[in-house]
Amino acid sequence: MTEPKQAVSRSEQRRQTELRILRAARRSFAEHGFDRTTIRAVAREARVNPGLVMHYYGSKEELFVRATRVESAEPAAEGSPEQIAEQLLDALRTKLTSEPDGTLAVLRSMLTHPEAARGVREALNRQHGKIYESLPGEDAALRAGLTGAITLGVVVGRFLLELDGLRDAPPERIVELLEPCVQSLVGAEPRPPHGFEPCGEP
Amino acid sequence: MTEPKQAVSRSEQRRQTELRILRAARRSFAEHGFDRTTIRAVAREARVNPGLVMHYYGSKEELFVRATRVESAEPAAEGSPEQIAEQLLDALRTKLTSEPDGTLAVLRSMLTHPEAARGVREALNRQHGKIYESLPGEDAALRAGLTGAITLGVVVGRFLLELDGLRDAPPERIVELLEPCVQSLVGAEPRPPHGFEPCGEP
Repeated sequence: MTEPKQAVSRSEQRRQTELRILRAARRSFAEHGFDRTTIRAVAREARVNPGLVMHYYGSKEELFVRATRVESAEPAAEGSPEQIAEQLLDALRTKLTSEPDGTLAVLRSMLTHPEAARGVREALNRQHGKIYESLPGEDAALRAGLTGAITLGVVVGRFLLELDGLRDAPPERIVELLEPCVQSLVGAEPRPPHGFEPCGEP
Repeated sequence: MTEPKQAVSRSEQRRQTELRILRAARRSFAEHGFDRTTIRAVAREARVNPGLVMHYYGSKEELFVRATRVESAEPAAEGSPEQIAEQLLDALRTKLTSEPDGTLAVLRSMLTHPEAARGVREALNRQHGKIYESLPGEDAALRAGLTGAITLGVVVGRFLLELDGLRDAPPERIVELLEPCVQSLVGAEPRPPHGFEPCGEP
């Protein structure tokens, strides 16, 4: 039991290095996708030897799995249709404000990398499943799927394809514009516009 | 000027071979993306020698450009907001019914292949530009961009990620569910539901 101090400091040092590698990997996977990310480039960005990356993570595949394992703030999808619509819109606002590199890495690779495709498909289906159970009316599975597809299209269009108009728009405005969309899909009554007087009640 | 018949038949034969290669390339790019498609696999599917593919197309890059050059039926995006909404929904219906391999190939590769990303970005921005000019109200560029992002999300979710609920849904039902969405984005008055009596006009 000698040098306990140095032992702690070494394990802490190792943890720091692993984290630095993971962060570099997330950025590279998010920007270039799985196939075009190299262990060598990740190592360079993390300022370590490529051998160390392999020592810690074993393979590019495993590094990808670890780098893209993110805790996502998924909507609870419970309550009335109005509450579900609000939860979905809140989740969209969060994604548009600060989508983490880990998620973008999965999305970037989802169309060409089977592991990423499976990850996105399972996450979306899980989320749709929860929404689906709470939705009244016909076609609940399809309507839940469409809310997911819309979120996917907007996030990919904004962060990965950087489409005109979408790239720089304030998240709040995007959420506002999509509100009627999400409400109609989950079967929520639209909130009356400001100053609206329902007819028959003058 | 001897053997004119055979000359014609040879050029026709060449045209047929080129087409067969292009079709095989479209299928492979659509299914596996640019990076995972090989000249060797395309040649095998087209039942030709890999050397012939290179002879006709020069490189995988050029084969990709040629295979993904598709005539897309883009909405004209003219007229009143109601007409624009209808054109966008018609275009979506067409995409959902029979999205050609060439388009799926570009979409499959758009997140990892710069040439494909540029193609999708330019096509969408061009289309948004046309819609944008016709839309009344604020945020026309953003609202046009959102209609494109939604279409993108739904096509990718259906054909490439094959999400639950979306994969097998009838195109007509998807279009119906997205109608309020598109209408609210382009600023069109929603069509009254069947049997609807506007209030004040009993």
